[in-house]
Amino acid sequence: MTERLVVIGGDAAGMSAASQARRRRSEDDLEIVAFERGRHTSYSACGIPYWIGGAVTGPEDLIARTADEHRARGIDLRLGTEVTEVDTERGRVRSRDPYGQEEWVSYDHLVFGTGAVPLRPPLPGIDAPGVHGVQTLDDAEAALAALDRGEVRRAVVVGGGYIGVEMAEAMLRHGLEVTLVDRNLEPMNTLDPDMGRLVRGELEGLGVRVASGAPVREVLTGRDGRVRAVSTDDDEYPADIVVLGLGVRPATDLARAAGLPLGASGGLLTDRAMRVRGAERLWAGGDCVEVLNLVSGAEQHVPLGTHANKHGRIIGTNIGGGYETFPGVVGTAVSKVCEVEIARTGLKESQARAAGLQFVTAVIESTSRAGYYPDSAPMTVKMTAERVTGRLLGVQIVGREGAAKRVDIGAVALTAGMTVDQMIDLDLGYAPPFSPVWDPVLVAARKVADAVAADLRKG
Amino acid sequence: MTERLVVIGGDAAGMSAASQARRRRSEDDLEIVAFERGRHTSYSACGIPYWIGGAVTGPEDLIARTADEHRARGIDLRLGTEVTEVDTERGRVRSRDPYGQEEWVSYDHLVFGTGAVPLRPPLPGIDAPGVHGVQTLDDAEAALAALDRGEVRRAVVVGGGYIGVEMAEAMLRHGLEVTLVDRNLEPMNTLDPDMGRLVRGELEGLGVRVASGAPVREVLTGRDGRVRAVSTDDDEYPADIVVLGLGVRPATDLARAAGLPLGASGGLLTDRAMRVRGAERLWAGGDCVEVLNLVSGAEQHVPLGTHANKHGRIIGTNIGGGYETFPGVVGTAVSKVCEVEIARTGLKESQARAAGLQFVTAVIESTSRAGYYPDSAPMTVKMTAERVTGRLLGVQIVGREGAAKRVDIGAVALTAGMTVDQMIDLDLGYAPPFSPVWDPVLVAARKVADAVAADLRKG
Repeated sequence: MTERLVVIGGDAAGMSAASQARRRRSEDDLEIVAFERGRHTSYSACGIPYWIGGAVTGPEDLIARTADEHRARGIDLRLGTEVTEVDTERGRVRSRDPYGQEEWVSYDHLVFGTGAVPLRPPLPGIDAPGVHGVQTLDDAEAALAALDRGEVRRAVVVGGGYIGVEMAEAMLRHGLEVTLVDRNLEPMNTLDPDMGRLVRGELEGLGVRVASGAPVREVLTGRDGRVRAVSTDDDEYPADIVVLGLGVRPATDLARAAGLPLGASGGLLTDRAMRVRGAERLWAGGDCVEVLNLVSGAEQHVPLGTHANKHGRIIGTNIGGGYETFPGVVGTAVSKVCEVEIARTGLKESQARAAGLQFVTAVIESTSRAGYYPDSAPMTVKMTAERVTGRLLGVQIVGREGAAKRVDIGAVALTAGMTVDQMIDLDLGYAPPFSPVWDPVLVAARKVADAVAADLRKG
Repeated sequence: MTERLVVIGGDAAGMSAASQARRRRSEDDLEIVAFERGRHTSYSACGIPYWIGGAVTGPEDLIARTADEHRARGIDLRLGTEVTEVDTERGRVRSRDPYGQEEWVSYDHLVFGTGAVPLRPPLPGIDAPGVHGVQTLDDAEAALAALDRGEVRRAVVVGGGYIGVEMAEAMLRHGLEVTLVDRNLEPMNTLDPDMGRLVRGELEGLGVRVASGAPVREVLTGRDGRVRAVSTDDDEYPADIVVLGLGVRPATDLARAAGLPLGASGGLLTDRAMRVRGAERLWAGGDCVEVLNLVSGAEQHVPLGTHANKHGRIIGTNIGGGYETFPGVVGTAVSKVCEVEIARTGLKESQARAAGLQFVTAVIESTSRAGYYPDSAPMTVKMTAERVTGRLLGVQIVGREGAAKRVDIGAVALTAGMTVDQMIDLDLGYAPPFSPVWDPVLVAARKVADAVAADLRKG
């Protein structure tokens, strides 16, 4: 008997699940229906800042697989169609198509790939013309249209996280005066403040004004109703365009209404196989779930395309009769703003504290290549290790070319549960164009290992 | 009572040992005498191809610490002074200074940091003017003088390993016609032949003629006695300059004469603490020792500055009253020729076979960045995993910018003894400028994991 898989959300997690299930099960065996309320499928949201900045031409380039391609592979993809209710008792979802037509569709397997919604605090003026989110392809198109109008000289980016700094780069590329407004004391709140301070310095070096330490209070508009400035408790920042990069929250209203288990940050909770916890035929992945952080041992919301793709593939494999599980994350993230590279993995200090972990840290400065090699660039590495055991807890890097992906060394070491002592003599690639004879990560490992030892001697 | 540390060899291993011991023990407690038969100390041999190629100005840039700097830190450094005999019975070495003056110097600790000697097969014409080694700063100066003479149009590089391809780049930078002669069927014999073939293609794309599959038979000279060509069984290759990049062997004549334990490749054998095996007051590190390969479980000669520095520091720490050991290597090496990056870690197929390991492999093609991001460059990754267990055995990468240092992911995974299944969902840094949403290493891990599973099904 033919089973039916219903997918809610036509992006990375949902469509990866659909594709992988289709690869394993024929159309006679498994019917696949995917609902996407937007106009596009499988696009790279991570690429949007680069489209807006002009490094990438869009939107075609950002679409990994079009609706037609999915359909050609035997997936009944329904664009512009929203799922408005999930009835887990009777195993069916209610959909509403672009013409308002409603339909109940029953499922044998249901995948939540509902993604995340951008945070948009209910501030005065937040919906004024000239205020732009950067989550969807439509958002990007709107922002580009505003920029192309040509009367735009000053940009205020609200939010100093990854999206914020990437959008600061995009605005710089349009030749705008850029102010980055962030409520935290330093930008890049996913790093410790001392590393965030380095990012601030780099941003300022690029000509970005960094206004941090106070949240946005209001978006001020002119007589024409368009945005004219952003105000905080500290000051007022003139703006012809405002870009919101405040992060996202899991889009789990449907799941909540269906009484499914949600975590502290509102994401769906799953088991190792990416089944909704305690539910038999329900699966969830991507930006709408919480994932296990292997370092803290706690669940966390980590909206990243790379995880969404992994989740989707795992779900599709399991629905397809295979067996695969998601081990969890270690909190790796990389980003750049112009030539400045920013990376982190593991726990920052406040996260370690929240997990009940005690730690020592070390910060070192080194270079991306042998000091004598051309274009050798400075790099700062911060490493955190657990007291007593010396287990690696986190790595943060700010530098130039060659800095960000070095964090992968830390990501693998965290996954393997290595101590910093075990990292000191790691056999990392060395040649003058690629590294000093002591890779910066090794220098940091040595210094934090010394700190672990010194701490032990203190008792 | 003051002890005396005698160091033979003033380069990375020896001088790191001396410096580290000095940091831990005062001059009253430990006298340090270091013998170096050349004119320089602590220079980066790895930087020589870049000096010859003009990317780096030398030789000052390549000298990490000058003789005077060592002396200022309380090390009695004797340049131009060779140790001609080691008398382990009476704990003394015989030295000969630049004036032929001989002296016996007794030691409480002796460090062998004698390095390696370049291979130079006894071929007809090998000593003709115009044939250049590239091991020492003096070698580099001689080669540069020859190149500056300006009558040089055609270069033949003998040897297609790291030094060979790096020297091919250096010769290209001088605007020469370059032929790379290598006895193996494909260049980069530290890779498997299928990956070496990619390197050949890249070299040819850069305009290098690759003449492989036959060893050099003779260096032919003209009437003036200078080199005019290199011949193999296959052909004759005209040359105005010949560069030898045939690799090195451990410089262990002194150790051999003293009856110390040597391994299959002629390197000194040490214990974990870098003591000469079975000897109490003797230590050895750097290019003159063999190291444990953690993947094969066998000893191997791996002449790399990064290991030499680690060995030296460990020896110095242990002589200084601390405790540190060298865990071994996993065989990581990175190199580049112009924009082409080449990397390997773990075992190549023939090494795995020699270690008694059975394996499956996978080769994938991916890109350095998201496909839509500017300057995204192709990258080929080969991964090898043990049959049945799925343990990672090796990674090889050929690509462009961002390819080489990705091998560090494999290096850490090998050190941790991970299986390729454990690597599939590694939380590696992802953002469009740094990686496709599936990092190439993850794609390779997945493919080889599938191969392990398929092999298991076959039984």
